[in-house]
Amino acid sequence: MPSPEPSVPALDRPEQVVTVLGLVAASRVTAFDWLAADALHAPRTQARVAVTRLASGQLGAYDTLARSAEEHGGVLTDAAAPYLELLDGIGQRTRSDDWWERVVRTVVAGGMVRDLARVVGERLPEPVRDVVAGALAGQGLTGLVAAEVAQATAGDQALSARLALWGRRVAGEALGAVQPVLDVVELAGAVDLSALAAPAVGTVSADHARRMQRLGLAA
Amino acid sequence: MPSPEPSVPALDRPEQVVTVLGLVAASRVTAFDWLAADALHAPRTQARVAVTRLASGQLGAYDTLARSAEEHGGVLTDAAAPYLELLDGIGQRTRSDDWWERVVRTVVAGGMVRDLARVVGERLPEPVRDVVAGALAGQGLTGLVAAEVAQATAGDQALSARLALWGRRVAGEALGAVQPVLDVVELAGAVDLSALAAPAVGTVSADHARRMQRLGLAA
Repeated sequence: MPSPEPSVPALDRPEQVVTVLGLVAASRVTAFDWLAADALHAPRTQARVAVTRLASGQLGAYDTLARSAEEHGGVLTDAAAPYLELLDGIGQRTRSDDWWERVVRTVVAGGMVRDLARVVGERLPEPVRDVVAGALAGQGLTGLVAAEVAQATAGDQALSARLALWGRRVAGEALGAVQPVLDVVELAGAVDLSALAAPAVGTVSADHARRMQRLGLAA
Repeated sequence: MPSPEPSVPALDRPEQVVTVLGLVAASRVTAFDWLAADALHAPRTQARVAVTRLASGQLGAYDTLARSAEEHGGVLTDAAAPYLELLDGIGQRTRSDDWWERVVRTVVAGGMVRDLARVVGERLPEPVRDVVAGALAGQGLTGLVAAEVAQATAGDQALSARLALWGRRVAGEALGAVQPVLDVVELAGAVDLSALAAPAVGTVSADHARRMQRLGLAA
């Protein structure tokens, strides 16, 4: 991760803290939605239950985030609403009825959204920065399915090529949301984050390449 | 609730306990699925988050159920699979894109499935009977939305009539699953549950009428 650039302002005013908490909450609600829908496409009951439980864990820090928003004079669901709309858009543009494509979608786009929330969250002051880091540290889908995807694609070149292409498309959609998300932070927090755009895209892209590698797919 | 009929056998052999645990687990996974999908149709972010969190809570007892199945020589996900298929069928036949119809579907069918699992679970020996009662005691959707549905329908006779009709249709679908669910218990547990069918339908129907009343709808 790049060390914070001196030209990127901290997000320490209450309205700034609240909107970042909203972004983090929206990222967890979106992860829940995607995983919950993925679970229904799982090929086996065991995978379905595992993904369902993963979904259930995404909201674990919600109370803590809501309390923190309240302490900063805001309402978490209100702060989350504009981000949810943006992230829902990624979900709508990356739908698939295929289990493998769904898994890759959620790993790739979910991971990028989480990274973006993390990069923005690092601008928060303590102790809320720790709250956000904790909320984003939850278990992800990658660990659960990486070995399975790598195994399935190792024996199937057509699947491997299809999922690599699909992964790039999904990554494009998620990357396309970086600037609109930063725009919402700027607007709600009355702050200029133009210096954050490049490092944010850099971090999100680098972590994306690592995730594709774990899945055994060409990034 | 009717007191256990002497002619209904207890479900105390290990394979019987395991299959009932599977039914209970399947009822929670189904509740999760329905609530997770409902959340996406919520008219406001606040309702969406509230329903998402309700969904997340449904799997809270899963570890306990899985451990209990293991203690009885079974695997919970395997035991849940045939029930999940039946309950998924109810879900597929009661789909709607309308928020109110979704809410009524999940309250009505989810409540009836929970009641059925409860009636069957009462045949288990201690201490697993308590485990099951605990897993089924979780928070439901009724408490969250009853007042809202009642308020919306009080001012809108057309909506009230449509939802009452819809609730009856959903109830019919859920009631239709009672015998197939008991059939799975009989098959997996090698037990004759014919004496349980009538009291089970009786309990499920009576609780259904109470739920419709709470929603302010004609049962």
